[in-house]
Amino acid sequence: MAGLEDPGWEPAAGEEFLREALQVLLEEAVRKGTDVTEKVCEWREPLELRELLDLELRSGGEPPERLLQRCRDVVRFSVKTGHPRFFNQLFSGLDPHALAGRLLTEALNTSQYTFEVAPVFVLMEGVVLAKLRELVGWSSGDGIFAPGGSMCNMYAMNVARFQRFPECRSLGMMALPCLALFTSCDSHYSIQKGAAFLGIGTDNVRLVATDERGKMIPEELEKEIQKAKAEAAWGGSALLSSKHRHLLAGIERAHSVTWNPHKMLTVGLQCSAFLLRDTSGLLQRCHGSGATYLFQRDKFYDMSYDTGDKTPQCGRRVDCLKLWLLWKAIGTQGLAQRVERAFACTRYLAEEVKRRDGFELVMEPEFINLCFWFVPPSLRGRESCPNYWPSLGKVAPAIKERMMRKGSMMVGYQPHGTRVNFFRQIVTSPAVTRADLDFFLDEIERLGWDL
Amino acid sequence: MAGLEDPGWEPAAGEEFLREALQVLLEEAVRKGTDVTEKVCEWREPLELRELLDLELRSGGEPPERLLQRCRDVVRFSVKTGHPRFFNQLFSGLDPHALAGRLLTEALNTSQYTFEVAPVFVLMEGVVLAKLRELVGWSSGDGIFAPGGSMCNMYAMNVARFQRFPECRSLGMMALPCLALFTSCDSHYSIQKGAAFLGIGTDNVRLVATDERGKMIPEELEKEIQKAKAEAAWGGSALLSSKHRHLLAGIERAHSVTWNPHKMLTVGLQCSAFLLRDTSGLLQRCHGSGATYLFQRDKFYDMSYDTGDKTPQCGRRVDCLKLWLLWKAIGTQGLAQRVERAFACTRYLAEEVKRRDGFELVMEPEFINLCFWFVPPSLRGRESCPNYWPSLGKVAPAIKERMMRKGSMMVGYQPHGTRVNFFRQIVTSPAVTRADLDFFLDEIERLGWDL
Repeated sequence: MAGLEDPGWEPAAGEEFLREALQVLLEEAVRKGTDVTEKVCEWREPLELRELLDLELRSGGEPPERLLQRCRDVVRFSVKTGHPRFFNQLFSGLDPHALAGRLLTEALNTSQYTFEVAPVFVLMEGVVLAKLRELVGWSSGDGIFAPGGSMCNMYAMNVARFQRFPECRSLGMMALPCLALFTSCDSHYSIQKGAAFLGIGTDNVRLVATDERGKMIPEELEKEIQKAKAEAAWGGSALLSSKHRHLLAGIERAHSVTWNPHKMLTVGLQCSAFLLRDTSGLLQRCHGSGATYLFQRDKFYDMSYDTGDKTPQCGRRVDCLKLWLLWKAIGTQGLAQRVERAFACTRYLAEEVKRRDGFELVMEPEFINLCFWFVPPSLRGRESCPNYWPSLGKVAPAIKERMMRKGSMMVGYQPHGTRVNFFRQIVTSPAVTRADLDFFLDEIERLGWDL
Repeated sequence: MAGLEDPGWEPAAGEEFLREALQVLLEEAVRKGTDVTEKVCEWREPLELRELLDLELRSGGEPPERLLQRCRDVVRFSVKTGHPRFFNQLFSGLDPHALAGRLLTEALNTSQYTFEVAPVFVLMEGVVLAKLRELVGWSSGDGIFAPGGSMCNMYAMNVARFQRFPECRSLGMMALPCLALFTSCDSHYSIQKGAAFLGIGTDNVRLVATDERGKMIPEELEKEIQKAKAEAAWGGSALLSSKHRHLLAGIERAHSVTWNPHKMLTVGLQCSAFLLRDTSGLLQRCHGSGATYLFQRDKFYDMSYDTGDKTPQCGRRVDCLKLWLLWKAIGTQGLAQRVERAFACTRYLAEEVKRRDGFELVMEPEFINLCFWFVPPSLRGRESCPNYWPSLGKVAPAIKERMMRKGSMMVGYQPHGTRVNFFRQIVTSPAVTRADLDFFLDEIERLGWDL
């Protein structure tokens, strides 16, 4: 058959391209992307950006130099989430050990379904999950990495339903009595999404009232088990700190826990663990299907190492290596220090917000969420005017637009209940110093002064 | 606050570590991992491997040299899925352009929920999805990348349910009439998993009989729409070849398509597109929840660019860059050539299997699945003996064990219905040459000769 004598690509040229692309990665994405003197983002309007990038896919290919320029452009116009002044969402920072783990994961391109294909990662995932369970306070149990905390929460809801009503798997929700799902009215939106996806229905999600700090009111806590499943995803890392783990006191009484090390531990997207206290094989019974082309019964090794049937996924990325390598690099102690540093940053910012004119805390932070308003001079002292709150609600979006166009930093804002738009600051990256925190407040003041 | 003056890590040391880890990646994972003279795997029993790797996570950290050795060990004992003789599952090959895209994706660490965080990737995903839809035959539509084909199939089932019964989202399955889901009895196991997960129930999956080639029998095809949703995931890439796209004739009549470019196009795990013909915003209505901390209504740019609410996920990895960069590098033409090369490899192997003594096709391949038995000399000519088929069923597992222990290559086997274990060979990597295909059959013969 003509054409099969030689490979369908040129290995040497490919390797050369890869080496050069790695230079772009190191220089542009890593070094410049984390350099505090560079912009966090280079804002372009969508239509202009589309034009600039020439995204169109065509019939012919392009030469290496052109492709490398495209790589540079992709980095240039992407938001630098590892920049010390990227505070926009619940992840930030570019840990070199975790990143090395992630790059190796890509190069090995392993699908984590069976031991024969993923021998190292099946064992490694087991060790990492056991370590996370140990921090929760369980000496045994089960678990699996999943594509994100929302999926973990859906797994938890599905496993809970299956445990109580195993017939749901074969007969569906139609065979069950009407179910209700209790969660905090401030719980993550994945609970609602999950209720819709799993066929439970969002109307059957009962939102339990919370106090002013967003905690479920104790009198409502007959439904405690469901609550435990619905929360803890990004706060889980506080378990690493002996100083702060009291915030999660009682978590060991939960039946399952969702934990996102990609947030506070700067492991990189995605690293989400779904942990179960169960040791009876519930996860396998709930999700397993025993496909004969992957999970043959006549393998020459112990099939219990083929963990891939515990998930609703088929092919599944390796999410343990990045966390494992980081853990090996800095140890449990080092991880605890990161958690404590995040708390210290929040503490410092909270004191500054209280000290500075025109800054106002939404509430005293308990965890590493700092919620506050910036009140421009034009609104100060006018709290009793009827248009005070509506006007204040327009301040954060206006400041956000200015910071994005300038590229100086990024932070999120949101309204909540009757509270108008406030900034929500979360510092997780160890790259952030006091100078960055001072800059953060100074910049908000500068950008919002004339509003 | 003490300790916040300086960063919580040492950037220069981190960068140095990263550079050295990238050398390990290039030398060990890429160069040696794709070198045909190296082993595909270095088999160790689970307990021995656990010992060798010292996976335990401890309180203290480790020095860089130790960590680099760990990286080398991880690569050493991992299966080389990019090796020309890794034929084990539906993916293989290590394309340098796709890999560069994947490594950049990791370094940028972007969560694809909003335009403000993912400006380049929101636009790029739109272009890539539109291109895939164009190949399906749709001039407009919707879509989203998802964590794997199984999840895509669940999205499809959920969207179909929502379109017909929008009240399911709020009221749950309990408010619906009893639903039935029609699929081929040879469809992928994700349909059953999805039926369980979505609360439909596996008993309500009606398996439609297939002919001997595994195709649904036309008389049963009133349920054609559901079938279209359940299939096409890894065969989708045949659409790129004008020579082979007739195999998917009629796909443009489907309402949705699941397509895994991480299989035949060697893009790398994971790259799974869920494509919809709908233009009414069904996906957003079905999955959207409008969380106010991400999808604020008072943003300064057009919110329709915040595509992250179309998925049941919250944080979502970027899966478009690797495919986009590969496409830019080799063009639609180059992708079509890969598809045609995969067909040519299968054709060559099928002819060889027919020509060689002791090899027997399970059926003539139509796509790039080649299913065959190897009959060792001891069983030849004994087809009429009552123990012929049971004995033949033990041959593939025995050969598999020997190839794993030797590390010479990897290929999957499985039984199917009344057919005993056969090998299932799928060649997708352009690195595979005729010499590798000859080696593949020779090696099976060598390993199974004395059985």
